[in-house]
Order: sequence, then structure tokens, then C-alpha cells
Amino acid sequence: MISKNQISDAHKRISPFIHRTPVLTNTYLNTVSGANIYFKCENFQKIGAFKARGAINAALKLSPEQIVKGLCTHSSGNHAQAIAYAAKILGTPAYIVMPSNAPLVKVNAVREYGGEIVFCEPTLIAREQAVEKIIEEHGAYFIHPFNNQDVITGQATCAKELIEDTKRAFDAIIAPIGGGGLFAGTCLSSHYFGHKTFAYGAEPEGAADAILSFKSGKIEQAPYINTIADGLLTTLGDQTFPIIQQLATDIFTVSEVEIKQALRLVYERLKIVVEPSCVVPLAAILKNKAVFEGKTVGIILTGGNIDLDKMAEYLS
Amino acid sequence: MISKNQISDAHKRISPFIHRTPVLTNTYLNTVSGANIYFKCENFQKIGAFKARGAINAALKLSPEQIVKGLCTHSSGNHAQAIAYAAKILGTPAYIVMPSNAPLVKVNAVREYGGEIVFCEPTLIAREQAVEKIIEEHGAYFIHPFNNQDVITGQATCAKELIEDTKRAFDAIIAPIGGGGLFAGTCLSSHYFGHKTFAYGAEPEGAADAILSFKSGKIEQAPYINTIADGLLTTLGDQTFPIIQQLATDIFTVSEVEIKQALRLVYERLKIVVEPSCVVPLAAILKNKAVFEGKTVGIILTGGNIDLDKMAEYLS
Repeated sequence: MISKNQISDAHKRISPFIHRTPVLTNTYLNTVSGANIYFKCENFQKIGAFKARGAINAALKLSPEQIVKGLCTHSSGNHAQAIAYAAKILGTPAYIVMPSNAPLVKVNAVREYGGEIVFCEPTLIAREQAVEKIIEEHGAYFIHPFNNQDVITGQATCAKELIEDTKRAFDAIIAPIGGGGLFAGTCLSSHYFGHKTFAYGAEPEGAADAILSFKSGKIEQAPYINTIADGLLTTLGDQTFPIIQQLATDIFTVSEVEIKQALRLVYERLKIVVEPSCVVPLAAILKNKAVFEGKTVGIILTGGNIDLDKMAEYLS
Repeated sequence: MISKNQISDAHKRISPFIHRTPVLTNTYLNTVSGANIYFKCENFQKIGAFKARGAINAALKLSPEQIVKGLCTHSSGNHAQAIAYAAKILGTPAYIVMPSNAPLVKVNAVREYGGEIVFCEPTLIAREQAVEKIIEEHGAYFIHPFNNQDVITGQATCAKELIEDTKRAFDAIIAPIGGGGLFAGTCLSSHYFGHKTFAYGAEPEGAADAILSFKSGKIEQAPYINTIADGLLTTLGDQTFPIIQQLATDIFTVSEVEIKQALRLVYERLKIVVEPSCVVPLAAILKNKAVFEGKTVGIILTGGNIDLDKMAEYLS
């Protein structure tokens, strides 16, 4: 099990390269939810998402021999930018495998950080094969988006900061679940740095693998995939699941309508731009008022990298 | 002329009731503009806009006799909410005259602060008549949205805070111009608290009264009105114009296309929700790169009260 000291060490390690992101509160959202909510705004993080934390922690822990030939990963999302940014810090190349249908805005973002993009067919097999080829050809070091102890440890610094900066005895901290890297980290930091703080996960009904896994005790696939929360499509991994299984209090699911309503609330009331995956925890709080009423609750707002055309579509 | 001490006193007076809003910077926007830009984020201000500053300052300066029968104003925008909020602080009624075609989101926002809304026909004459009737019936005290020395003094605290919190010797501070309350205040604070800081104004081509007035030396009307920057439609007043005439360095105009491009940049890069009027200064900087290249520049982002349907429309 990742230790409290490992998380504190990771935090010191990555601090020079990440933002200590602000925490927002909002009277209106407290009124409608009945809870006292603290929003940890990772949309203001480097590369626009919490993923910078885990990627940089994992990259900085590598030996000079491991990094000299570059880093690589496959991702169409925020982890791609995070690895490109981490490689830039280390002064080594980044090889990012992206599906050929990746949005231009994400492709450009990776290029801005100097990442070299290798396009492949939009299937998991094609992505993994492309990564293997890069490792073979260049000897680049692969960093998984979530199923990696150092990545999980880096993501844990997010809830740690939230607790430290607000000085609140949180009753609960709630984070969205994709592959479970952030949520496993949130479970760990709630446990180590909280004050009897419950860690709740939230995921879309249209990508509900975590709740099934949590209930059955083994990693399950989502019954179906259909959600605008495009950062939460992945399935738990063998590194993230055991931590969640041991430390999580419960997992909530929310519908697409509830996600869109929460998205509007954040834009309208918090006045910040976030991606749909972010608001799944807020939607869960509004759906389960009895659980959170009168409680002090932290929410990790995970990122703000949303395509503006999509944003217009979700608001219409 | 409003003095430096008057602005400092106003700042102390309103501080318990306003947020000391954050200042954001962004590497990408610095790169594309060639300037070092500091964004003062009044979209995070109470009621979602800088207008809280002036309204509260004016309200707090009134005598008990002046406030006992309530405050009133006419506005379809942020000043309406600001007066409702100021009246709530004072524990006195707020009578807000709004045009019958005011967006529901603005009407609801005024009601949230406990304001009593009086609807009228959407003409300036009807608005002024409705206010006169309220003054006659209730004896409420009228606070003008911009043509009021105490309102201007309150708005001046915004640039003062920007200078104090960043500790920068700004080459320039740039603010949008509607009736000129914020811009007159920005001119004053740039003069008193800056270090040879130029104060620039920015307005839409489709509401270009200020530049005409600045050039001719007397208050002029805009040749035509057609802009999405709905906070900047008003004409300079006899209290704001003389300050601008004396202290402003220059005024820029920008097109609707340039406003929409700047709006996208702020959403995409700063990850914050702002209303179109906000981004007119950024659009002016991007249009006049030679003026701002290599300079340290402050921008007042004035507010974030945008109807989400409109936001979707502007992004499409």
C-alpha cells in the first residue's frame, strides 16, 4: 500500500512544476445542495487537468537511464499532454500515440508541449501495438495513465492540497472515476490526511464499471458506454482497484441529464470552464442530498480541457 | 477630482462586502500577444461583476435618512444585482426597474438578492419615469449605474487591487468602456497607484461613443449600436467623461469577430466564464500588438454573467 510519506514526498517532488490550484466555494450551490462544498479547481492546473501531477511524479522518479530515450504513452486525452509536459521538464522526447480520430484541439495541445504524435487506428489493440513499436524503436519509457503506483501517488496530492489549504475537517471528498488513478489517490489522502473523511467516487451510468467492480469484488466491465464524460470511459486497473476496494466508502452513478444540469450550474455559478467528467461528483451530491446534507464536502474538479464546439452543444 | 485618499477610503469601506478577486496569468496568451498580461478576474466578484464595488461604496456613504426608504435604480444588467445586494447589506428594500424584455436569468438574479422588480417598457424614457414614480411613492434613493462620483470611486478599487496584489509596475491597464464608470476609476487608480501606468479604454466598433467623445472633446453618441458586448451599450456621462478626457492615454475599438475570437481564447485558455464585454480589452491588445509588445499589461475582466444559451450561440 502507498504510504503517507510517499504521498508527501511526491508532493514535494512535483511542487516546482505544478500549480497549487485554488479552492472555490459558492453560496448558491451550498444552498441548493444543503452541503458546504469546496471545489478544488484542477482546471487551472498545468496542462488544464490534474493529470500533470501523476505524470510528473512518475517521470521524476525515473533514473537517468530510463528517461534518456524519451517517454511514451497512448492517450487521446489529458494524460497525453501531461506526459508531453513531463518530458519537456526532463528535456527528453515524448512519443504520444493518439487515435486518428482524436480532436484537433488535443493534438495541437500535445504539440504545444513539444510532444511527437504517432497516429494509429482508434482501437485499444492498435494503440498498444503502436506503443510497443515505439519502445522497440526508440527505447522510450512507457507511463500508464492510471495503472501505475507513482501516477496514483501523484494524483493523491490533489486531495492532500485540498485538505491542507482549506484546513477543513471534511466529512467527505468525492472524485470522478475513470481508470481510478485519481480516485485511488483521493481514497489514500482522505485516509491519511483527512479527519475520518469518507471517500466517495462518482461515475456516469453510461460508464458504470467501478460500481459493479466495487460490489462484486473483482474488476468488471461497464454494461454499456454512452456518456459525454469522455474522461471516464476507462475501466479500473489492477493497481487502482485494490486501493478503492479497501478505502472507498461508496460509489454513485449519475445520468447524462444530471451531468448536463451540473455542467450548467458550474458554468453559471462558479464561472469556470470545466470538462463534463468534472461535474459528475456535483451531480452525485445533488442526487443524494440526504447523504451530504449539512456535511463539509470536497469535490475534485478534474480539468477544463473541453472542445468549445462540444461546450456549445452541451449548453444547447 | 476624486482623490487618492477617497479611493483608499472607499476600498476600506467596501472590503468586508466584496471579494478580493484573483489575478490570472497565462503562458499561451502571453506568447500570442507578446505582452505580459495580468487578468483581474471580476467574474468571481460578488454578484459576478465589478459593479458590486461602486454600488456598495455609494450605498454605504448614504446617511441613515437617505437609506431608510430603500434604494432604487434602473438596469437590465449587473448594476441591478449590485444595488439589490447593497440594499440587502443595509437591510433596506431595493426597487429595481427592469425592461419587460430583460432576460429571465437577470430577473431571477435580482430576486435572489431580495430585490423588488418593477417592469417597464424597454425604453430609456419609460425606465426613468418608472424610477421617478418609485422615488415619489416610496422615497427610495436613486443610485446611477455610472454617472455618480461614489460609484466611480468604488470602481477605482479594482485597478488599485490589481496593482497592489501583483506588485507590478504596469506599463498599461486596459478596461472596457460602457458609461465609463469603471474606465474613469481605472484612469484614476492607474494615475494614483501606478508607476507611470497608461490607462487605455476599449470598446466595440458597434458602440463606439467613447472614442468619438475622446477625440471631439465633448460627449458624443455612437454612430450605430450593434454588438454582443451588451454591457457596453451606454454613453459616457458628465461625471465620467471629464476624468477620462483628462487621464486616459487612448481608446481602442474592436470588431465583433475580434470580440468572439477573444471570448474563445479566454474560455479555452484561462478556463473561466466571462461575458462578452469583458474580452474587448484582450481583443484590443491582440489587434494592437505593436503598442503592447514586451509590456506589462493589466486587464480588468469585468464580469461573468452570461446567459448560457447566448454562450452556446457565440461559440457556434
